[in-house]
Formats: sequence, structure tokens, C-alpha cells
Amino acid sequence: MFYLTRREHFNAAHKLSNPNWTEEQNKTVFGGCANPNWHGHNYTLWVTVKGNVNPETGFVMNMRDLSKVINEQVIKHIDHKNLNLDVPFLQGIMPSTENVAKAIWDQMAPHIEGGILHCVKLQETENIFVEYYGE
Amino acid sequence: MFYLTRREHFNAAHKLSNPNWTEEQNKTVFGGCANPNWHGHNYTLWVTVKGNVNPETGFVMNMRDLSKVINEQVIKHIDHKNLNLDVPFLQGIMPSTENVAKAIWDQMAPHIEGGILHCVKLQETENIFVEYYGE
Amino acid sequence: MFYLTRREHFNAAHKLSNPNWTEEQNKTVFGGCANPNWHGHNYTLWVTVKGNVNPETGFVMNMRDLSKVINEQVIKHIDHKNLNLDVPFLQGIMPSTENVAKAIWDQMAPHIEGGILHCVKLQETENIFVEYYGE
Amino acid sequence: MFYLTRREHFNAAHKLSNPNWTEEQNKTVFGGCANPNWHGHNYTLWVTVKGNVNPETGFVMNMRDLSKVINEQVIKHIDHKNLNLDVPFLQGIMPSTENVAKAIWDQMAPHIEGGILHCVKLQETENIFVEYYGE
Amino acid sequence: MFYLTRREHFNAAHKLSNPNWTEEQNKTVFGGCANPNWHGHNYTLWVTVKGNVNPETGFVMNMRDLSKVINEQVIKHIDHKNLNLDVPFLQGIMPSTENVAKAIWDQMAPHIEGGILHCVKLQETENIFVEYYGE
Amino acid sequence: MFYLTRREHFNAAHKLSNPNWTEEQNKTVFGGCANPNWHGHNYTLWVTVKGNVNPETGFVMNMRDLSKVINEQVIKHIDHKNLNLDVPFLQGIMPSTENVAKAIWDQMAPHIEGGILHCVKLQETENIFVEYYGE
Repeated sequence: MFYLTRREHFNAAHKLSNPNWTEEQNKTVFGGCANPNWHGHNYTLWVTVKGNVNPETGFVMNMRDLSKVINEQVIKHIDHKNLNLDVPFLQGIMPSTENVAKAIWDQMAPHIEGGILHCVKLQETENIFVEYYGE
Repeated sequence: MFYLTRREHFNAAHKLSNPNWTEEQNKTVFGGCANPNWHGHNYTLWVTVKGNVNPETGFVMNMRDLSKVINEQVIKHIDHKNLNLDVPFLQGIMPSTENVAKAIWDQMAPHIEGGILHCVKLQETENIFVEYYGE
Repeated sequence: MFYLTRREHFNAAHKLSNPNWTEEQNKTVFGGCANPNWHGHNYTLWVTVKGNVNPETGFVMNMRDLSKVINEQVIKHIDHKNLNLDVPFLQGIMPSTENVAKAIWDQMAPHIEGGILHCVKLQETENIFVEYYGE
Repeated sequence: MFYLTRREHFNAAHKLSNPNWTEEQNKTVFGGCANPNWHGHNYTLWVTVKGNVNPETGFVMNMRDLSKVINEQVIKHIDHKNLNLDVPFLQGIMPSTENVAKAIWDQMAPHIEGGILHCVKLQETENIFVEYYGE
Repeated sequence: MFYLTRREHFNAAHKLSNPNWTEEQNKTVFGGCANPNWHGHNYTLWVTVKGNVNPETGFVMNMRDLSKVINEQVIKHIDHKNLNLDVPFLQGIMPSTENVAKAIWDQMAPHIEGGILHCVKLQETENIFVEYYGE
Repeated sequence: MFYLTRREHFNAAHKLSNPNWTEEQNKTVFGGCANPNWHGHNYTLWVTVKGNVNPETGFVMNMRDLSKVINEQVIKHIDHKNLNLDVPFLQGIMPSTENVAKAIWDQMAPHIEGGILHCVKLQETENIFVEYYGE
């Protein structure tokens, strides 16, 4: 069993804000992340697939295919966008790093061929990242 | 003469859009950077000061003082903000990396003591950065 | 289940030296790390907490709270210190990367709320790090 | 149980090419990686060993010993070499990242003392890496 | 005057070998870099352009245009290639980092519009890079 | 003219403390850096040499020779040492980043052959570095 990881990037605006709370409550819990006019990040995404090696290719999965799936299913919908407003697969979801990582997992899982989706790791800043393994 | 550099971070939302152009023109020139609902970045900022060493301290300038000036004059106004809407020293300025670097220079220059402001380097993504030397 | 990681930094002096051994034996086993007048490192620390997402916040745990705990329980006692002499929670402990990682775990574990402490990863140089999972 | 990791580097030329396929087929599957005159990479290798701490040293394993084993068993055979032509332990193996990681595992495993080989992680570019755990 | 930098990557095989010398002499001077069957690197390339800001765009030069020129003039000829054998603009040139940096400068300079080519920086490994300013 | 840079590492303990000041004054100016029992860093050192390319080798200077000089003149005296107590070329010098960079310059300059020493860059943490050009 091999664990194969591909890194991709996107950048986006977002804010963290619970619509059932006052602006004051949001500011207390989320700090600057609740700024009404948004802020943003360069996100780094690592997608890990596990599987056995195909003896014809030496690959678990062709990295170009994995990159194509990530770009088709995730990056083109999310890059240079507003996570609260613009992304179909994030509608109604508070765009915390945790929730975005899970939404990326759900978006990717049906499209992995040759291996099994193992981990989605999403880094929001150099100091903060989340790993999600599908359950 | 020594060149002393301090790195700081901020993150922010912005968009690139010339108000005299149609949305179509903006999209042609700025691509995804013109997204109407914004996008964002983790910016990395390097501020370089030059000067001679004070023999009492071994310092051109105390790094804690430099960090305090950067935070007071720049970071607290710009971090977790929208560069087009929220930042007093960017009013009326298209927030390209070039223009933001120059605005940070103008904001910093009067407040450097002990040395002379030499360079503001601003990185927008791992692949793009701008250096400005004050003229 | 989500795995949430926060990175922090500290720097410190230390030496590796078994008090039951001669200086010669210490030098043979520990090399330059046994230098009697100390040496030091910039340590990077990653603390990982696992848990479910709170639907009100989208968070396993508020990163500002996690950062506060790390700073309160670890960083303020260890940053700009001598690991052999100055740190209450390292008294009597040989400050190898392994032992410091475990001591940080013990220091942190009782103070994590909302999630469960999963991993302490401590990097001594770009080439050496240790991970400890609590047993 | 502690997990101790040592990073090393090597650089090498290689190509990906299935000898049972036409050049056209190889180009379709492997793209630029099938370039007949080779291409190359700076590889980064992380070797992780797990074990308990020796109370005399505070170490699972002396990092200098681990580094020596990696250099003796792997780096000196593979650094500044052609992975398809020059490396005894890669004879007859298509040098995909997966296959090279496994070959490094097989090369290392019999020589780890004090701990147990846990993971070989091999990075081919900043965007691609493979982890192998021995089965 | 602003200095604008774009980073790109390529990877390639090469060897360092003076055809007027014996293999022994080459090995003495170039060490592992003279390996007859080649070795290779992940190269990182930074191209810096200087100029004034266009007030319509806030740009010295549109980064997408700069990236397009670098890819058209350099990357597509050099990526996944053998620097000694495959690259038209390196024919007859010993592919040291210095010489490749100069060849990239010569390849780029006639194609920069809006600004002036200022620096080509080429990194061969994390420990070695060359900067060339055109004279 | 080419600018050729070699990166090296060392780690060391130090403290910043003016012997003519009280401990209180030292603490006010130097903060945690005045800790009486020392602290330490992983230092990164970049040495830049400028010169023309030797047509026989394609090199300004053989990087292995440059690395050898840096190791002989600097690293072996300073690595795993106490900068205040153990290093012959730092006797009587307050080991601020500025002063250590200048001392490394003075140590290196007489030993560069083939090129001219251009810059010593010394990084103390990821956030702080100094460049010195010899005057």
C-alpha cells in the first residue's frame, strides 16, 4: 500500500460569521475573521490517495490524472472566489478550514480511480492546517 | 553599512478592477483577480532598514522596535481587511502588489529611527513579489 | 473526526550530556551536542488536536484558544531559555528532542478543551523532528 | 512510542518508460517524464523510525547513526546518478516515486537498530510525494 | 521604479564535463556532477522586471504576460529535458548554473514589454543559486 | 558578472548583554535575548561571491571550494558553540546578527579565490536577517 500526495493551491476571500449571532458575538468568537468586508488567504491543498502500484506504470495513480480531478472538481470552482458567496459546493456551509476540507473531500471522493481517497489536508496560513480522512 | 530585514504577515481580501472599464475589460486584463465578490491572499512583507551598528547594542535598530512600527503603521490597519474598502492608507488606490508595496513604504518611512528605510518587499503568492526602494 | 494543527516557534539553548558519563563518553555519543558551553536551536512545534466540528462555529476548537494554551503552558516557559537550566517542566530531563516533545505533551494534555490532544511534533533542525502521540 | 524522522537529499536523472510499449504509448501515459534523453530531480527523503527512548541517551536512535545508515545504504548509491542505469538496488525497476520509495525501504529495513523502520517518504517535486510503510 | 519578480520551475538532467579533458580530470573538478549517465535537478527560476507602474492597471507588467513569456521562451524548451542534449538555446554551452542563467537572460531579454529585464536568478539546489543582471 | 551564492547552516547558543549595563537595563533593551543562561538559534548563512565565468569550467568559483572555505573558516569554529564564549573570531564582540555577519565577512574575505566576496547574509530566525557587503 502506497500513499501518494499531490499539492495544489488556490486563493480565496471568506469570512467567519454565524448568521444567528449578533455582529458583537461574531467578533468575540471569530475576531478579525468576522470582518464584514471579508479577508482572504492563499490556501494550500494536499490530496492523498492510497493504493497498490500498477506494474505497467509504477504508479498508484497517474499524478496528471489526480491533478486533473482536483482542478476539475475543486480548484476551478474555488480559486479567486469568495468562499461564502461564489462556490456551489460550499453553499450554506460556514467556510472554516475544517468545513472546507470536508467539502473538498466530498467533492473529490467519487472521482478517484485506481486508488482510494485517503486524506485531504488544507492549510489556511503557515500556522494552521486541518486533515480530514473521510469520517 | 548593514541591511537589516524584518518579516511580517497579513492576510486580506481584494480585487483588481479599473472603475473606468467595463466588467468585460476588467476580466480580460485582470482575469480571476477581477472577481466581483473578491478573492484574497496571505501576504508576506519584508521591511529592510539600513544603517550603522550602534556599539552599545550591536544593532542598527532594535528588531522589536522595527516590528512595533510595522505593526502600528501597517499590520493593524491591513490584516484581516479588504484592501479596496477597509484600509485608510489605500483609499482610492488600486490594490495591485506594486501599489500596496508603495503605500506601505509611504506609511513606514517617517517612522524609522536609527536607520533609513531601504526596501519594502511584498509577496502576494509564492510565485509573485514586488520590491520598492522609495523612488 | 478532524485533525487540527497549530504551529508555534521557540528558541532555546541546550546541551546533551549524561551526568553519569565522562566528558569523553558524552562527546563520543553526543558529538557537538555535548558542547559544555551549550548550543541552541530555533524549534518549531506543531500541536494537533482531534475532534468533531461544532456546528455553531465550524471549528473543532478555536485556534486562538489553542494558541493561547500552547503559549501559556509551553512557549512562555521555554522560549529564549536554557532547556537544561531554566524550564520548570524539564527539570531532571535530558533535553533530547524526544524528551522535550513528551514533556510538552504532558504540559498540554490537561488543558485541551473541545478536542483531544492527538500529536506533538517537535522539529529541532530542518533535518530532524520527532512525533509523539501520548503513549 | 516515539516517531523520529531524519531528512536527507539526493539528486538524480531518470525517465519513465515501459519497455513493452511504443514511444508513442509511453509519451501518452508519462508525458515529459518519458523524454528519451532523461530529465531529473532534487529528491527529498524522510526516513522515520519508531521506538522507545533509551534513558541513557534520551534517544530512540542516535540521529548520527540513522544518517550514517541512510547515507551508506541509499545516498551514496543514488546521489548524482541515473536511476534507470546506475543504481544497483534499482536494477529492473521502473523508477517512479512509488517504486523508488519501496526500494529505499527494502535497502534500509535490515539496518535499523534501536528502533523499527516506520515510514519512507520520498518527494520528487514540491507538488508530489509518496509515503510507504513497508506493506 | 518597481522590481517585479515571477517564480517558475523546471526540472532537467545534465552533466558537467569539459570535452577537452579526460574523464579523470572531469571527475576531479566536477565530482558527482560529471557522472557519465547524467544526474538532474528541480530548478527554480526567478525573473525580475523593473519599471514604472501603469496607472490604468497598477502593474509594471501583467504577471500573466510575464509568465507567458517565460513559459514560451524558456520553460517549454527546457522542462523535462536534458540540458546538454535537448535544448536549442543551450547548444555548445556547458550547463553550469551560471551559463544556464545567462542563456535564460539572452532568451528572455528581447521579449519583455512594459518593463526592463533586471535579474535572472536560477537555483539548482536549496544550497546553490546564481544571479545574473545582463552584464 | 555573475553572483553566486552558497547556503550553509550552523546552530549556536548566545545572549545579548552589554557588560556596562545592569541586568535590568539589559532586560529592557534586549528582552528575552538577555536571558543569563543563554538561548540559541539555527542560523542560516548565505555567502555570495561575484566574478566572471571561467570558460573551462562554466563556474565563477567551484561551489565545493566555496563550501570548503566557509566550513574551514566559519562553520567548524561556530557550529554547536556558544557565540559569547567559544568562538575565537568573536572574542569581545557582542553577538548580534549584525556583528556576527561582519565577523563572518572578515573571516571569509581573505580566502575567496576566483571571485570577490560580495555579500554575507545571516538569518537568525525566519523573521530576522542581516546583509553585509563589506563596508
